[in-house]
Amino acid sequence: MNYRFSDTTKAFESSAVREILKLTQGRSIISLAGGLPNEQFFPVEAVSEAFDRVFKQGKGVLQYGLTEGYTPLRENISKHLERKGIRAGVDNMLLTTGSQQAIDLLTRVYIDPGDVILVERPTYLAAIQVFQSRQAKLVSVDCDADGMIPEDLERKIKQHRPKLVYVIPTFSNPTGKSWSLERRQSTLNLCKSNDVLILEDDPYGELRFGGGEPMPSIFSLEQEANGGAVVYTSTFSKIVAPALRTGWVIGDEQVIRHMTRAKQAADLHSSTMDQQALHQLFEHFDLYGHIDQIRTAYETRMRQMIDLMKAKNWDGVQWIEPKGGMFVWVEMPEHINTQELLKLAVEEGVAFVPGISFFANEPQTNTMRLNFTHTDSEDMVRAFDRLDRALRRVEK
Amino acid sequence: MNYRFSDTTKAFESSAVREILKLTQGRSIISLAGGLPNEQFFPVEAVSEAFDRVFKQGKGVLQYGLTEGYTPLRENISKHLERKGIRAGVDNMLLTTGSQQAIDLLTRVYIDPGDVILVERPTYLAAIQVFQSRQAKLVSVDCDADGMIPEDLERKIKQHRPKLVYVIPTFSNPTGKSWSLERRQSTLNLCKSNDVLILEDDPYGELRFGGGEPMPSIFSLEQEANGGAVVYTSTFSKIVAPALRTGWVIGDEQVIRHMTRAKQAADLHSSTMDQQALHQLFEHFDLYGHIDQIRTAYETRMRQMIDLMKAKNWDGVQWIEPKGGMFVWVEMPEHINTQELLKLAVEEGVAFVPGISFFANEPQTNTMRLNFTHTDSEDMVRAFDRLDRALRRVEK
Repeated sequence: MNYRFSDTTKAFESSAVREILKLTQGRSIISLAGGLPNEQFFPVEAVSEAFDRVFKQGKGVLQYGLTEGYTPLRENISKHLERKGIRAGVDNMLLTTGSQQAIDLLTRVYIDPGDVILVERPTYLAAIQVFQSRQAKLVSVDCDADGMIPEDLERKIKQHRPKLVYVIPTFSNPTGKSWSLERRQSTLNLCKSNDVLILEDDPYGELRFGGGEPMPSIFSLEQEANGGAVVYTSTFSKIVAPALRTGWVIGDEQVIRHMTRAKQAADLHSSTMDQQALHQLFEHFDLYGHIDQIRTAYETRMRQMIDLMKAKNWDGVQWIEPKGGMFVWVEMPEHINTQELLKLAVEEGVAFVPGISFFANEPQTNTMRLNFTHTDSEDMVRAFDRLDRALRRVEK
Repeated sequence: MNYRFSDTTKAFESSAVREILKLTQGRSIISLAGGLPNEQFFPVEAVSEAFDRVFKQGKGVLQYGLTEGYTPLRENISKHLERKGIRAGVDNMLLTTGSQQAIDLLTRVYIDPGDVILVERPTYLAAIQVFQSRQAKLVSVDCDADGMIPEDLERKIKQHRPKLVYVIPTFSNPTGKSWSLERRQSTLNLCKSNDVLILEDDPYGELRFGGGEPMPSIFSLEQEANGGAVVYTSTFSKIVAPALRTGWVIGDEQVIRHMTRAKQAADLHSSTMDQQALHQLFEHFDLYGHIDQIRTAYETRMRQMIDLMKAKNWDGVQWIEPKGGMFVWVEMPEHINTQELLKLAVEEGVAFVPGISFFANEPQTNTMRLNFTHTDSEDMVRAFDRLDRALRRVEK
């Protein structure tokens, strides 16, 4: 059989990084590479009870559900969003298989091959893959610690006439950055006045350190009914558990309606078992107390990682201390290629993701993403000793 | 905000049928329209116990899983397929969100806009939607009671040079037909010798009436290692429950690898809660006894439907008595347009799906699909009285 795969299949070719990370499988390597929440904080008993409550309702819970998702859960998410200053009713909401699917569905209904999408420099790896698989043209906007730089954004809007801007303004993957209020507003204004849709990806917003007030989402800054210029997506993966694969996306009814139809073709609907259980969790579990517990634990881990890095006194190595989320973004001196460093690091018994994977174009080859949520305290110490040895070898 | 949706979004426009069926919501209408399994046979206690067993394993069950799906479940499906004469190892298998997603993922990795896909005349509505959303060109192959007619298939292969043939050879949706062995073999031979990939969609194969031996799948007829010319998909939706949204697709490793990467971009992975529970169900539940129970019950319902239709003595109305599955396909006299009939039927209090929705092109407007699995015995009697009244009105 001579297979004739589609042109877009090329976008899914395996990356060099994935190949290196495969080497870590089955070896005693400490991984700072993944984006995994810490299992220690999964509320397994509460989730188990939630499923019990669902099954007690009888056989009907196992039937096909709405493509839009289980309505009582959408109502609970709507209330949850209200606490964050976001107004979105059930008709403005679609439940998805993780927020990853929200990115994919919006891309399907909004992007044609050749359309331009503006992204942060750097941005989320798996969003790049979705956009490239749609044969979109990706253009990176220059960013600083506060977010997208308005002058560069404006220039690139005028030059490329993009349809979409994709952003992770709160505790970004991979950088851990949180945008300033001013930059959120300027990005919204620029996009709105140029009819550019914003996809605001917010999987980490609840993982806020320091106990302060949350930064408003771009969606909530949008005053048009239902956030006309902004589509917003988030997920339970980081605040409850990833295995439940439940995310949501909100936006204008017209956008959500199109996405719902696309989802109907894609998979009819996501697991309503998981959706019904999450509804029970909202009703019978102290979700916000639980989130507070995760926040505190992750902040401690982040602090340990930063302290360990400081103690190593690495020459010319810089990072941004995140105010939330799961990652620290590290810039090595320019002559260090982190893909080369990764090979040595894996030999020493530690893994990370080289930054190159997070750039749609013009990669900074001296960067890396470190995850601090999944590694326990003792392993974290070992990880940095190993990384230190690898770094000494590359410096030679 | 002036939205600029993608060209393919047009494929998802709401159909006239969907609009009519919306009228049934909240009214006391008996629906023979849906494709719903009967809730009465959902093994809710066994599923609940299966979830309990999963949660007893601890917090780790809530972590992210493999895109390919939970390995022990893939092993169990592999054994399940062996019983059907299908050899497929875990590396030839991807777990999906229902078999609907398998259709979508194969389309993504195999079809470019403008590529030709051959389908049965008629075929599964939601597959047509997926293919059209990819801007594929659909060509219907003429079928009789035994399956695709080889002469027409060969002619259309030579004329259109298709990349893919999509078939539901066993208890088809919408026709309930099961292809003869000869037609399965001739379709395979023709496709194989012309490098045309076959997507064999088999959601209903287990719902076999009459207790005889199952007809071999086209996949199992394919002698090349791993069924090189055939990709096969099925699901737990009809034999356990749809809410668990778990399907699988098997094929050549190369095809499965590409589909896995496409799935990674689409949603990372499907619910591993549901996959782990289904694994426990294989281990601790008499799945095959359960399937036998469903078969018997559905056969009784099918028999009732056919008997009711016979008793009505409708002039010039024909149907094929299905040997399995969930549907009876009815051909009315040529002058009856079933879309018009549906409006009257809904007024009388009964709904069905007009056949037009199941044709990729050249629709037979005098056809309809009736579901017999979801309506209980008393309502079935009422449904045909109502349909009878509607038919008398249209005949006037």
